[in-house]
This record gives sequence, C-alpha cells and structure tokens, in this order.
Amino acid sequence: MGDTMTVATETAILPSYVRDAWWQPSADAQATVVRDASTGEEIVRVSTAGLDLAAALEHARSVGQASLGELTFHQRALLLKQFALAVTERKDELYALSARTGATKADSWVDIDGGIGVLFAYSGKGRRELPNAHVYVDGPVEPLSKDGSFLGRHVCTRLPGVAVQINAFNFPIWGPLEKFAPAFLAGMPSLIKPATPTGYLTEAMVRILVESGLLPAGSLQLVSGSVPSLFDELRLGDVVGFTGSASTAASLRERTPAGVRFTAETDSINASVLGPDAVVGTPEFDAYVRQLVVEMTTKAGQKCTAIRRAIVPTGQADAVIEAVRARLDEKTVVGDPREEGVTMGPLVSLEQRDEVLRQVQALVAGGGRIVIGSSDAPVGDGAFVDPVLLRFDDADGDAVHTVEAFGPVSSLITYDTVAEASDIVARGGGSLVTSVATHDPAFATAIMAGVAPWNGRVLFLDRDDARSSTGHGSPMPGLVHGGPGRAGGGEELGGIRAVLHHMQRTAVQGSPEMLTAITGQWHAGAGAREDGIHPFRKSLAQLRIGDQIASHTREVTLEDIETFAHFTGDTFYAHMDEEAAAANPFFPGRVAHGYLLVSWAAGLFVDPEPGPVLANYGLENLRFITPVSPGDSIRVELTAKQITPRETDEYGEVRWDAVIRNQDDETVATYDVLTLVSKE
Amino acid sequence: MGDTMTVATETAILPSYVRDAWWQPSADAQATVVRDASTGEEIVRVSTAGLDLAAALEHARSVGQASLGELTFHQRALLLKQFALAVTERKDELYALSARTGATKADSWVDIDGGIGVLFAYSGKGRRELPNAHVYVDGPVEPLSKDGSFLGRHVCTRLPGVAVQINAFNFPIWGPLEKFAPAFLAGMPSLIKPATPTGYLTEAMVRILVESGLLPAGSLQLVSGSVPSLFDELRLGDVVGFTGSASTAASLRERTPAGVRFTAETDSINASVLGPDAVVGTPEFDAYVRQLVVEMTTKAGQKCTAIRRAIVPTGQADAVIEAVRARLDEKTVVGDPREEGVTMGPLVSLEQRDEVLRQVQALVAGGGRIVIGSSDAPVGDGAFVDPVLLRFDDADGDAVHTVEAFGPVSSLITYDTVAEASDIVARGGGSLVTSVATHDPAFATAIMAGVAPWNGRVLFLDRDDARSSTGHGSPMPGLVHGGPGRAGGGEELGGIRAVLHHMQRTAVQGSPEMLTAITGQWHAGAGAREDGIHPFRKSLAQLRIGDQIASHTREVTLEDIETFAHFTGDTFYAHMDEEAAAANPFFPGRVAHGYLLVSWAAGLFVDPEPGPVLANYGLENLRFITPVSPGDSIRVELTAKQITPRETDEYGEVRWDAVIRNQDDETVATYDVLTLVSKE
Repeated sequence: MGDTMTVATETAILPSYVRDAWWQPSADAQATVVRDASTGEEIVRVSTAGLDLAAALEHARSVGQASLGELTFHQRALLLKQFALAVTERKDELYALSARTGATKADSWVDIDGGIGVLFAYSGKGRRELPNAHVYVDGPVEPLSKDGSFLGRHVCTRLPGVAVQINAFNFPIWGPLEKFAPAFLAGMPSLIKPATPTGYLTEAMVRILVESGLLPAGSLQLVSGSVPSLFDELRLGDVVGFTGSASTAASLRERTPAGVRFTAETDSINASVLGPDAVVGTPEFDAYVRQLVVEMTTKAGQKCTAIRRAIVPTGQADAVIEAVRARLDEKTVVGDPREEGVTMGPLVSLEQRDEVLRQVQALVAGGGRIVIGSSDAPVGDGAFVDPVLLRFDDADGDAVHTVEAFGPVSSLITYDTVAEASDIVARGGGSLVTSVATHDPAFATAIMAGVAPWNGRVLFLDRDDARSSTGHGSPMPGLVHGGPGRAGGGEELGGIRAVLHHMQRTAVQGSPEMLTAITGQWHAGAGAREDGIHPFRKSLAQLRIGDQIASHTREVTLEDIETFAHFTGDTFYAHMDEEAAAANPFFPGRVAHGYLLVSWAAGLFVDPEPGPVLANYGLENLRFITPVSPGDSIRVELTAKQITPRETDEYGEVRWDAVIRNQDDETVATYDVLTLVSKE
Repeated sequence: MGDTMTVATETAILPSYVRDAWWQPSADAQATVVRDASTGEEIVRVSTAGLDLAAALEHARSVGQASLGELTFHQRALLLKQFALAVTERKDELYALSARTGATKADSWVDIDGGIGVLFAYSGKGRRELPNAHVYVDGPVEPLSKDGSFLGRHVCTRLPGVAVQINAFNFPIWGPLEKFAPAFLAGMPSLIKPATPTGYLTEAMVRILVESGLLPAGSLQLVSGSVPSLFDELRLGDVVGFTGSASTAASLRERTPAGVRFTAETDSINASVLGPDAVVGTPEFDAYVRQLVVEMTTKAGQKCTAIRRAIVPTGQADAVIEAVRARLDEKTVVGDPREEGVTMGPLVSLEQRDEVLRQVQALVAGGGRIVIGSSDAPVGDGAFVDPVLLRFDDADGDAVHTVEAFGPVSSLITYDTVAEASDIVARGGGSLVTSVATHDPAFATAIMAGVAPWNGRVLFLDRDDARSSTGHGSPMPGLVHGGPGRAGGGEELGGIRAVLHHMQRTAVQGSPEMLTAITGQWHAGAGAREDGIHPFRKSLAQLRIGDQIASHTREVTLEDIETFAHFTGDTFYAHMDEEAAAANPFFPGRVAHGYLLVSWAAGLFVDPEPGPVLANYGLENLRFITPVSPGDSIRVELTAKQITPRETDEYGEVRWDAVIRNQDDETVATYDVLTLVSKE
C-alpha cells in the first residue's frame, strides 16, 4: 500500500485484540500512519512491534478450540445472530468511520450492512442446514457388504487449529465477517488480520463484538498490523483464508507449510457481456449500462468483483460508450463522501490513486484509448480520480486481460460471435464473476458453456431480474465467492460449503451400531428399542435414537384399493384394470396405490392422543420398492433416526426412519417421516 | 526407485500411447531396465526419449475434450462399464504379468479386480447419481429476491484441460483406474504416467482398453517413462492427481503452475488401535491381530494404507506380539508368488528391499526393538524380506511416527488412556486411515472425536463386521481416499465427489427462465406450458421441461377427513378432536391429513388410462406449509422438472414439481413426484 513510516506523531496506535485482551505496542514504536482518504488528515498509527503472535495462535488452538468445542452448531449459529444484533445496534459508529476510508453511504451499506447480513445468513443456515450437534454427516450411507453389517459414511469434524483470515482494505467489515462467520460456525477460532489502510474500521467492529460480552474465549483475535512471522508459525490443522492481490496470494501460497489449507480470493479481470439481442432500446441494454456504471463507481471501483472488461457486440460499442458517458454525467459526483450530493468517494489513499493511474497508463500502452475520463491525477490532498473507460479495438493483446487498475476503470472490447465472446472472457485467466445481459436463453446457454469453467459466478441480467438482481459485484452468502486461476482458485461463502472448508471430511466404516454411535443418526441394522412406551408418547427429553414402534399387519384387499381410488380420484389403470396393469413392465397386475400404503402406514404407527408429537411437517426420500397386490399384508417399522432440539423453541425436529414390509418380509417402501416434537 | 541405466539389452522398450497411437523411442535410446521381482530377470526397458509431451497434452485438450464433450454423463458411465467388461475378459493376461511384480494371486486380485471394480462402481454411480446431461447441478436453489424473480444455483462443468495422473508402483492397475474413472466420467481426458518398476502392467491394461476400440479419441494417453518437462507444460484448466511419497508430492506441488489443481495421496504412518475392551479372547482381539497380519503381508506391506503403528493398551502388548507371531508362523510363506503355497511375495525390486531395510534400521535407531523378523537382507536375486514387527517402549520419540519402511513392517506402541491413544494417532501428522478394534460405542465415539481431523478414513472393527469388513487397507470407490497433512491433503474416490474434483463449481444467478435453460431443470417461476395435451400422455420424446397440468379445485369437508381417518386408521387428534387440535401450536383446529392432501393431489393430476407414464416410484422433499381446514379447497400444479432418459432401457425418469395450493393461493404443500416414463 506504499505506507509511510514515521516515528512520532500525535495519534494513538491502533490496538490489537489477542488472548482475550486489548494490546498496544509502546507509544514510541515505529508505526505506519493511516490518513483520511478525502482530507489526508492523520487518523491513526498501526504497528504490531512486540506482539507475541505465537502465543496468540496457541491461545486460539487451546482456549478457542475448547470454548467453541463446547457449543453445538446451533448454539454457535445463535451467537452469530446475537453478534449481528450487537453490530446493528452500534452501526452508526461504523458508518461514521467508514466515510473516512472514502466510502459513500451506499458503499458503507455494502460493507457494513452486507457484513451484518452475512452473520444473519449463516445464523439461519446453520440452524436450518446443520444438525444441533458437533459432527456434520455428509452424504448418504454407502453400503459396503451385502448383509448390511458393514457400512460407510462421511462425517466432517472441525479442524483442530486456528483460522487465519487475511483481509483486503476495501471491505473492512464485510471482509472479516464473511470469513469469520463460517469459521465460527464450524467451531474454529479466528485470527483476523485486516489491511492497514482501513484496519481501524475492523478494529471498531471487533470492539463492538468484544464489548457485547458474547464472544467465547479465544474464538476471535485481531492483529492490527503486519505479521511477518505468521507463516512460520502455522501448522497442520490451521487454515489460511486470504483476500487480496493475485501476486501476494501466490507468494503466500508458497510460504504456507505443508498440510495447512490455503484458500485465496483475489481480484480478477472480470467481464460483463452484452448479448447480441440486447440492442439499444431493450431493457437488457439499459440494465447492462446501469450495472456497468454501478460497478465502475461503487467503492470507486475498488472491488475485486468489479467489471474490468465490458465485452459488447461490434455494432454496439459506440452506443454503449455514449450511454455510459450520459449516465456518468447524470449520476456521478466525485468528492468527499461527507459532502451533500457526492455519489463517488476518493480511493483509499494517495498511493492507491497513483497506482491506479499507473495501471491506466499501462492499459493505454497496451492498446487502449481513453474514451471517458483521463489518466491525469487531480491536485489536492484527497485521493480522488474520475471514472475512466478505455476502448480496445483489438482483443488480442494481453494488457486488457491482465492489467488491473483497481479503481473506477473499465475497458471496452468488441466481439462478433458467441465463441469469440467466450474466448475473450477466458483470456482473463480465471475470474470471480462474469455477467451477461441477454433475454435469449439460447445465447445464455451457449455462452455459459464457454465461460463456466473460467468463472466462480455467472450472472444473467434481463428484463425479468433487472430490478431484483443483487448485482454483478455482490457476493451472496449462499453462493460461492471465488473463482479459478487468477481469481485465486478458492471458494468462500456458498452457504454450508464455507463451513465445510473449516472441517475435515472423514470416511467412517463400521457396523450399523458403531455408525449410529458416531454420527448420532440411527442406521438401519443397528439395535432398535421397543420398551412398551409408544415413541410418540416421549418428549425430546425422553426420546432416544433407535426408539421404535413395529406395527401389526394389515391386509390390503381389492375393495380397499377401489375405495381409495374412488375417494381420492386416483383411478390410474395400474390400480383399476387387471389386464392393463399386468401389461405394465413393473406390476404383476392391479396393485395398491403408493399413497394408500403410506397413508395406512401412518394409521399403523400413529398414536392418536395429544402428546409430545405436534405435527408431521414433511417426508423425504420415499421409494416404492415392491408392489402390493390385493391379498398382501403390510406392516411398518418406525424408528427415531435423528433428534434436533431447537435452541429457541420449546420443540425440535425428529426424523423417523420408516420401512413398510409385506407378509414375506420384502421391503415395500422406505422413507423418512419428519415431525415436530415437544421438548418436555 | 534406484533404477539402473543401461544402453543396450535384448528386451524391447515399453510403448507409450499418445495421440491415439502407440509410440516407442528408437531402440538404441538410453533406457531403464525393469526386472522380475523374484528372479531378477530383465522384463522390459523404459524410456520416453524423444516423446513430444506438449503435443500429447494439447491432443487431450483439443481432441480429448471434444470427443468426451459429445457424451453425457450416462454415456460416459456406460463406457466405463464396457471398459470393465473388456478388462475382465482379458484379465488372465494381467494376472500373469502381475506375478512378475512380486504380487501373489491375492495381491493381484486387489489390484486387478479392485481396479475393474472401480470402473463398475463409477459406471453405476454415474448413472444413478448424475443426470443424463453435461452439467451437474450442485445443491438447492438459493432464493435471492423476495418476489422469486432472481435465483441462485450452483452448476459444475468439466475443467477444460487434461487430467494428468501420476501413479505409484504398488497398484499398476487399480491406481490408474481409480483416477481415470472419475476423470472420464467428468468428461476430462486423462494422461496416465505409471511408475517405472511396474509400468509394463499398466501398459498391458491400457492396451486392452485401446484394443477394445471403445476409447473416445484423445480420452486416454499413456506415457511409459519419465516426464521431466511435465510441470512446465501445465496450464489453467488442467489437474494433477499424484500418488506416491510425501516428499515427491511436496516438490511437485511447488512446481505446479498457479491455477492448476494439484491433489496428492501419499503414503502415511497409519495406525490401528486396539480398544481397552478388546482383550485376549474377544472377537475384537482376534480381528485386530488378523487384520494387522493381513496389512503387514498383503503386497508385502507395499501399501500407502498399511498399518505402520499398532497402538495397544499397555497390558496387551505381549499378547498382541505373541498372537501376531503365531499367525505369521502359521499363515505366511515368503517366496516367488508363482510357487505353490507362497502367501507373500518379494518387494518390487532389490532397490526397494534395501530401502526398506535401511528404514527398519532407522526405526531401531529411533528406539524400536525388533521383536519379530530381522533387518538383515536375505541373499539371492529376489527382493525378499520377512515380516518385521518392532516394539517401542516410548511413544514420545519421532521415529515411530515419521519413518516409513514401505514393506512388511509395523511398530507396536502402548497407551493407557483414550486421550493418549488419540494423541499417538495424531503424531502421524495426518494419515490415510486409522482402524480401531472395539465393541464399545463409548470408546469408539471418544477416540473418533480425537482422531477424525487427522484421518481421511476411520474403520471400526468389531464382532458385528469382522467378517464383512473390507479391511483397513482397502480404499472403496464410494468412500474418500486421502487424508490430511502427511497423507497429502487430497481426496480421491468418495463417489461423485471425485468426479467433482474434475469440474469447476460455478454459482449462476438469473431469472427462473434463465436458470431453467442453463441447468436443464425447471425452476419455479419459469414459464410453464399447458398445450391441451395432458403431460402423462407424452412420451419422453414428446415431453418438455415445463410441461404442466394445473388441476381443478376440490373442497375438503369434515366428512372427508373422517372418512380418511377411519379408512387409514390415522385418527391422530389433530384430525379428529377440534379442541385438542386448536390447542396445538400449529393448527387452527381440526385439519386434513397431509397424506389425504397428497393422495387427493394425485387424484387431481393423474391421467388414468394406460400411456407412457409407467409408475410413480417415489417422492422427495415433501413439506407441509399451510394446514387445510374443513371447507378449504385444494388444487395442484404438476410441472415436468427434470427428464432423464436411460441409455439402456426403453424408459427413463421424470421428476415433477408438485405444488398444492388452497383457495387463497397459499401454498399448502410442495414436493417432487418421481415417475418412470416410456421413451416412445
């Protein structure tokens, strides 16, 4: 970042939060000065001189692992919600500081409310998609023996180390939180290392979390400043999540010790393609231009997801340039974000501004013509720069695909065929995101086939979603953020996928009994318990995995089938017409309705009186295996398979394993019944 | 491998298969001599002098990608089965050659029939678990806007490069096939590089595949020999799968260009723990000893999954040693595997034998006492060595946890507590597999918590699965093979997970219409088609994604609910008792049975006459959202969501999206109906 070292000034040194306490170097330590992006005023100094990093890491691995290990996924998820509420309550403090980084109110919203949104999203997903337990079971049972006595399953358990999170300057709130939320949910303690130019905003957010009193011991540490020895201190069981430049990512990846997971999310030369159908006057053309201007000016273009290459049909280039120019003229006011009417702030620092202008010159040297804006630096103490659009007449050169001006800068390239457009996108060498404005499903499908392997995310913009689209530049908590090649090759977010990055997937093999013990989920073949008390009469506190009701048998007659057919209206020939049914390759003749069997099974296993079982809220994985003919009998076994008490309700979910068998013990149908059951 | 270079001998140079043709260097090229493991007789020479590796890689990326891209997942899966049948038919040729590597018949079975088994397994999984399409949809829909007009989804598309597969000498058939099968299924062309000492066996297997005439152009290439320039030729979109030593993996990982996926599966210091309950006389003790001897002697211990550390309760050490000695004496005959009665062959080469004995000496130097066998080399031309068991009185030293003797060598260590046993396992620094012999679920659960994050696989052995267990040392196609840290940090196999390693996961955002076009699956909110023909009257050839039947409405009366209750026997109070139902937190009063609604919905959407729809074989993801009270009306919309024609049957699967709504357009229930439908 081209920081300036200085010895003594008036501002304080930004604290770190390590080993559950605030820490500062001595006041006379050598420190980096951080300045207001608009005014150049000194805000704070940054130094970690004397910080015992090894002790901080060890604190996470011992105290942090222990305190998080006591919590289930749901308990951690609930804490994430409480963190979100704590930050929300004091977000005005963060907005005020954020303006000093050059962020407008809209920019700050993306960072601050976006970060809070990630906490809420992971809180919800953690409770909906993870068990209220310590182990996550991944995928179905793998049968390993014919007799069912030896099974395989995959479980994920948290990694035993510390999650080191190295963040970029452009999102000092969202950046740390989008890494912290999944790590915390997985049960891994975090060590956050923000970028120096905006670390004071991260520090303020961490301070809110600390002061909430909600943080488990050792679960979050903050190192405000550089950590040169970091990679020497890492060991198997730790993970590193890095966001920043591709070159730094490459050098850190090399320094990562064997066995330490390293994922990177780096800025990339993202593309936005205008479809051939999206000509002037279409909603897609307008949406394309609107989005391009938003991506050029939001955060003054300091986003790793920003559009660097606008790829448009040859005949549309002039129209796009004119429309972008008109919209910039109409909408964009560059200035100090604290001033009324300003819509685009400065870059984060003068050093960053100079670097961006150098890259604009490199793009010009590489064949670009500036068609909007200029490569000259404005005078003054603020890191201001106007939006720049370059035009490349030739897509063959390297510069437009490799040179990144990390500011309000995009380049326009033209194409003639879908193959050409795809190839141009691919020239970026791997991107976080490509967007495509088109209302033509055929063009969408064709370009997707070409660009998908080169992108972590592809957004299709058209009249149907132009208003509701969350935008080219916005990673969403439920969707993977990251991309191949230059984009770092990593994946963040993507819902529970990001939690699993912090866990080891282990295949477990054993008998049904052992797999039941280890996963906390009943496996067919494990012992079941019939203790004379109907399991529907047991509260969550009383119910145990393996509690079972084995019903009596009931004969299915032809009359029953006819009754059901006429009652439901389901007179499908397989139930009604002996000859036609027998001609069907799957049926011996007329058979009972599948839904008759499932309905009767409920009649066979249900305990009708009011009790702890409150409702049947669903059913999963139903498969009809053996048809039931008139004269056959059925019975059902219902076994408690998984118990998930809710943290904030007086009930929880119970998943039951249901198996319907016939008089010959053949399996008729298998499924899971989902119920809500009271805790007491 | 300590190969010997020589200039001219009588044997041929082993061919490579590149660019869809067999290739050999000139006969006078410098070449490595490969010898029979038992007799020392020269078998073949190995050289790639003059091979145009860059052209081979480019052939894969162009011709291989194109030919595989024309096939769907199911078509590729079917080819895998045909490959398996082709190899099976000529497997006697492979068994004969395999004996020359030192493999007994049982060893060869693991390698050859094990490899064939992987092809069959991936063929089956590909057709059961992947769509008959080119794109794999990963995970559920992520809603991104309140009005449903903007959605997210993840799709996986194959990587656009070549899958380079570097294999170890110990499994010349299974090793290449377990990498090739998932790559092929994903649609990536493979370049196989076997290890020199046993590459002639891989060559014979590839020759069978080539001669089958089934290989799509460019889909498989074989480089028989060293490829020093390989890593300079790789680029974004390629993947490398490496099996071998941890040190080679580390150096190759460093040489891998940025953006190229590198996964490693390396030999590790695997452990096998005897539980405290598994005392002498228990089935678990016997199973433990039996498995330990199998792991020491199979492939003469040349397995990356073999047990290197036997971790037993302090009081059991002598009993285990005696039992192992007795079993080795009884069962193990070392010799040329072609001789009658031999149960353990030689190591692969004299060089390998000398290396193993050096490592045994290193273990002795590190505190081990040899209690079975010796560190002396037998005389003669064969690479024979007897099984060796060492005992370590102290688990604290490094040697027992880090020194690998890649032969019939294990070390015995003792423990006193479960925590101690876990810590000893973890000292291995990441392992492929740990097994535990115990019949105590509490011990199993406790040790699992300690060892899971350090292992790719954990096997529990007890009286229930001792006979059916596939064994400590055997990776299974459906289970992840690989482990953290020293084990390489990679994952192979694990079913479809291994296919996805060869694909890029991309988040797609767009309108329901666009997501439908791109994924080939109908998304709620996309257009649906009612053309006057009931979709049940359409064959697979006629049916289109989005074809819909919207039913008429039907009122649910209290009498209907009572009729259903008495017919099914499901007299749960929520349906029968107004007062009790109203006291339930989820119901306004008596409500219709969920199964009544689903049964009626079938009556509303079904077309009863014989036609292309053959059977309803299941139902998934049923959720009851809004209860239905007496007097409410329901209707259902059934929309063709996914169509999966089978390659080898006259029918296929159709997944239908079902939504039941009430008279106020509230959603009552959602689910997927699964049917079998004729092609014509």
